[in-house]
Amino acid sequence: MVDQRENALRYASSNKENFLRTYQEILLIPSISTDKLHLPDIQRAAEWLAKQLHALGMQKVQLFPTSQSPIVYGEMLGMSGAPTVLIYGHYDVQPVDPLELWQTGPFEPTVVGEDIYARGASDMKGQAVITLKAVESLLQTGGLPVNIKWLFEGEEEVGSPNLEAFIAAHTDLLACDFAVNPDSGMIGKEYPTITYGLRGLAYFELRVHGPAHDLHSGGYGGVVHNPANALAELIAGMHDDNGRVTLPGFYDRVRELSQEEHAELSRLPIDERHFLEQTGVSHLYGESGFTPIERTGARPTLDVNGLLSGFTGEGSKTVIPAWAMAKLSMRLVPDQDHREVHQQLIQYLEEHAPKDIHWELKTLAGNPASISQRKTPGVRAMAKALETVWGRQPYFKREGGSIPVVGDMQRLLGVESVICGFGLPDDNVHAPNEKQNLPTWYRGIEAYIHFFLNLSNGR
Amino acid sequence: MVDQRENALRYASSNKENFLRTYQEILLIPSISTDKLHLPDIQRAAEWLAKQLHALGMQKVQLFPTSQSPIVYGEMLGMSGAPTVLIYGHYDVQPVDPLELWQTGPFEPTVVGEDIYARGASDMKGQAVITLKAVESLLQTGGLPVNIKWLFEGEEEVGSPNLEAFIAAHTDLLACDFAVNPDSGMIGKEYPTITYGLRGLAYFELRVHGPAHDLHSGGYGGVVHNPANALAELIAGMHDDNGRVTLPGFYDRVRELSQEEHAELSRLPIDERHFLEQTGVSHLYGESGFTPIERTGARPTLDVNGLLSGFTGEGSKTVIPAWAMAKLSMRLVPDQDHREVHQQLIQYLEEHAPKDIHWELKTLAGNPASISQRKTPGVRAMAKALETVWGRQPYFKREGGSIPVVGDMQRLLGVESVICGFGLPDDNVHAPNEKQNLPTWYRGIEAYIHFFLNLSNGR
Repeated sequence: MVDQRENALRYASSNKENFLRTYQEILLIPSISTDKLHLPDIQRAAEWLAKQLHALGMQKVQLFPTSQSPIVYGEMLGMSGAPTVLIYGHYDVQPVDPLELWQTGPFEPTVVGEDIYARGASDMKGQAVITLKAVESLLQTGGLPVNIKWLFEGEEEVGSPNLEAFIAAHTDLLACDFAVNPDSGMIGKEYPTITYGLRGLAYFELRVHGPAHDLHSGGYGGVVHNPANALAELIAGMHDDNGRVTLPGFYDRVRELSQEEHAELSRLPIDERHFLEQTGVSHLYGESGFTPIERTGARPTLDVNGLLSGFTGEGSKTVIPAWAMAKLSMRLVPDQDHREVHQQLIQYLEEHAPKDIHWELKTLAGNPASISQRKTPGVRAMAKALETVWGRQPYFKREGGSIPVVGDMQRLLGVESVICGFGLPDDNVHAPNEKQNLPTWYRGIEAYIHFFLNLSNGR
Repeated sequence: MVDQRENALRYASSNKENFLRTYQEILLIPSISTDKLHLPDIQRAAEWLAKQLHALGMQKVQLFPTSQSPIVYGEMLGMSGAPTVLIYGHYDVQPVDPLELWQTGPFEPTVVGEDIYARGASDMKGQAVITLKAVESLLQTGGLPVNIKWLFEGEEEVGSPNLEAFIAAHTDLLACDFAVNPDSGMIGKEYPTITYGLRGLAYFELRVHGPAHDLHSGGYGGVVHNPANALAELIAGMHDDNGRVTLPGFYDRVRELSQEEHAELSRLPIDERHFLEQTGVSHLYGESGFTPIERTGARPTLDVNGLLSGFTGEGSKTVIPAWAMAKLSMRLVPDQDHREVHQQLIQYLEEHAPKDIHWELKTLAGNPASISQRKTPGVRAMAKALETVWGRQPYFKREGGSIPVVGDMQRLLGVESVICGFGLPDDNVHAPNEKQNLPTWYRGIEAYIHFFLNLSNGR
């Protein structure tokens, strides 16, 4: 196999320009899943992926329609005795607003220095193309040493409303030894990282209604509870002075960190300064008694994601708004349940909302947290691959974001995921000017080539 | 004079259609002073008024430019021995958003039943045209019994930033015995009303800044103080559990109601049910220990007028916003000073804003409250006029809104204002579907005809 390793790496090295062109092709497609106007772009991105799988010689390439975005499947089996690896990815992206803060068009991929800028460059079209190009490099130099299956969804950024049901209905099709999930990042450019813990998500829209219509604040200021003030009061009450969330029972199911894990997380090369630099704030904030890395990876949080009420244009308008809205989400950790958190929020609102307003709560997304096993053959093969490319052992990290599919696959397919992608902390994911570091991206392709070969050697 | 009274009323009665056409002309002009894009419309409205004054035979008709909206002046003097009345009005209007809630175009005046719908119909183009048409009715039937001067501004809805300086610079031009100000309303269709107390205003934009750019709420939830949450916390802290404003020193200068005034306000035919009906809320809210009429007229209040932060579109976006904004205003009562309230807000923010965010405060408007004398010849003439038209004595009311010019004229010209207009509580001023009741509007013209003649009779 030594020959194929060298040949595959050489193929990857001599096709950098081609690989980049493929990457740029998918970055051109504005596959924003939040916005129904982009459904045709979602479809285009799915078809583009199917075309890639076809070109690689995959079999059973198919688009499975869902109520919204199609799921793309393809497979290459036949290596009897070799493990079967299910490669997960998503082809949808976050919205782009505020558009005016982008320095280049979000769907006009632009290379500046070592980076490529575009929505989805890091999260996660770039990571998906890494797996495609690693597989291509192996197929062009002797073939795949393992069986693979691909599963691409187009609804990850809206909470994967159809994925769980799809997996449940296709457990035979998706049967595998383990999954790999590159929807993830590194803690720094020189710090290869495997993620083993993921936070869950519970996302809501809270609307507070006051008067039947906007009122003159002169004539009525003093007799109605202003819904914008009332919303602020409700939100303010959701944290106590120690930065803890006050929803009743919110921490009841939170799995506490073991001494061992606490010690291990403390060894990560991410300190307070790292977070200050990444965020640009002057002081950090959060639940007292925990380190920043614990607060983002191992503790649940509650954030307002958006606020809207009344007059927001230039100048002044003396109005008491008829309603006020907050987008509101919680990041969850094992063993919290997003459905229980929904109930806790309802209970909080029932207990704290004053009778002079009324409120509506809409669930926009919900998925559980997950912890993956860290001593599987898949993780060992990936750790060795990363060490080969970066010259140092990878770090094991709990990630603050959510990848619900990891928990779904544990539960429905009975398999663990190897979570390893090549985004960087300053990639501006979910924000203007998203980017991917290109040298790191090419190293990612090399790492995945090693990974597949290591799996074969290891058996 | 008996003849002129009958003739003038007959002229008004037989010219209802003409009067309505004039009224509709000015309602067509979108003279929104908040939005610089509408400066040409502001200019058009000013020129329209100047044309009307010319047509009435006024002298010295002139547009005085300011840094924004011109001030329109005109006069008819020469009745030696008769009082000189300064008639105030404003020709600018509030913005129209949310536009989608209007059932007819805000600048397409539409008569439905007894009402005319348009932005400015009630506040206050309708009231301004009442004074024009009352004067026309007298001029067409024998002439004016008093000297008059007109002062129309185009910046009332943005806090009259240039009016105070203009009055101060033109005290000779504006010299008069008293002013009339029809920028006001009645407490009910059958309840003629003279307003003698007005609240002041202090209007701010508060911006809370957190991270340097929007962040992924998964990766960073738990290490930064979300500026939307921080803004909510700051706003929530501005009221205590008794509905009182917590800015330091906010109530120090508030003039308490005398027993006499308290008793008199209690006699107004406005009860809790009235406010419930006008607002559509299920329960009233406000500072404990005061009646609704006192809370809107004689007590200061604090309201959020607008909120904006992060993602507010359809669906979900898991973002920690970089900033959050609130439009925030206080209604003031004698003897509060809006500049002191500005300092109190700064002090509150300095004491309560956490060090992990930073904030910016912009002043958008500020003006003092005022109380007018109630036993002047002008008020007596108006009270008699209202009693003649409505068949009952007028109510004396403290108004929750602000008419800064009343205080400016007290201070700079040494004159009191007779505040009497014909808006109704359900006119939707500052809101979608603003309207004016037309039978009441015609009665308003009659009332102003009587008023001018009563002034002459009374001397």
